Amino acid sequence: MDTSSLISSILSRSSLRRFTSEPVSDEAVQTLLHAAMAAPSSMNLQPWHFIVIRDEKLKLELRSCLPYAKMLKDGSIGIVVCGDTSLYERVNRMDGEDNTLYWVQDCSAASENLLLAAHALGLGAVWTGVYPLESRVSKLQELLRIPSSIVPLNLIVVGHPASSAKPMDKWDATKIHYEHF
Amino acid sequence: MDTSSLISSILSRSSLRRFTSEPVSDEAVQTLLHAAMAAPSSMNLQPWHFIVIRDEKLKLELRSCLPYAKMLKDGSIGIVVCGDTSLYERVNRMDGEDNTLYWVQDCSAASENLLLAAHALGLGAVWTGVYPLESRVSKLQELLRIPSSIVPLNLIVVGHPASSAKPMDKWDATKIHYEHF
Repeated sequence: MDTSSLISSILSRSSLRRFTSEPVSDEAVQTLLHAAMAAPSSMNLQPWHFIVIRDEKLKLELRSCLPYAKMLKDGSIGIVVCGDTSLYERVNRMDGEDNTLYWVQDCSAASENLLLAAHALGLGAVWTGVYPLESRVSKLQELLRIPSSIVPLNLIVVGHPASSAKPMDKWDATKIHYEHF
Repeated sequence: MDTSSLISSILSRSSLRRFTSEPVSDEAVQTLLHAAMAAPSSMNLQPWHFIVIRDEKLKLELRSCLPYAKMLKDGSIGIVVCGDTSLYERVNRMDGEDNTLYWVQDCSAASENLLLAAHALGLGAVWTGVYPLESRVSKLQELLRIPSSIVPLNLIVVGHPASSAKPMDKWDATKIHYEHF
């Protein structure tokens, strides 16, 4: 493996919010979702689901109900990453503890894989928040006909970048602690 | 950028749980944390903190209080990824909504970057869960002297792999939906 290439890809990825009218190919979407599904998950439950949105009317409705999704236009598509909370019922009974919220971590790891894969393909992407804001969760469940046990985590907008972005160097040594906080 | 290299790295990463006695270098730890800090975060708050644990006595205590951290031995080190919940007080007041739990998603994205960077460096790593299980959170806060506003999300064990792992192909077309769930 080319070590420096992977690390430099991680460091050079940045949120992109302006897209051209060129559509995202089906093949690219498959690659993005393949990468997303390669994420680790608690008890290997793989709680993720993905809703791919190309329909212009749905995109318009998403733009109007999510305050930070204004860039879902032109050639860009939406991918809503959701978690299936029903998968935890059995393990919670066995475990005596509530593991349900692990879906958030697993779907977030899948989302980061998706963003990195978009960057690798020369696409741009931005993660816009839905969960834990109840008003956004219920709007998306209604609009996208998502069952109540499936919770939308975010809306990732993916498209061909209209401009390049300068990645931020977010290195901060004060965030690192040794042995104790 | 070598597209296929990044995508294949994401697809070939797998949890590793057996390590040799070779220590993880300080340089590698810096690279892992640099990659982790390159993750996106809600409102760019970068809520993450990282506690790097090499001390053998602390490792033994972590092994005894976390049921899935038995592999924290030999040359491996622990990295506890934490989120600073106090950062959200100001934005919540401005916003009228509770954004605090975004720390979980941001720290999970940082954790996935860390796992991928470990894989790129030829190291092995495994994410072991802490939050949302309150008993594990409070034990780690006590043991690692973490203030109450800082919440440990996980313990990532990193080491030189004692064996290779066969990555799982987790592709599942039934997880993909178009336009509606």
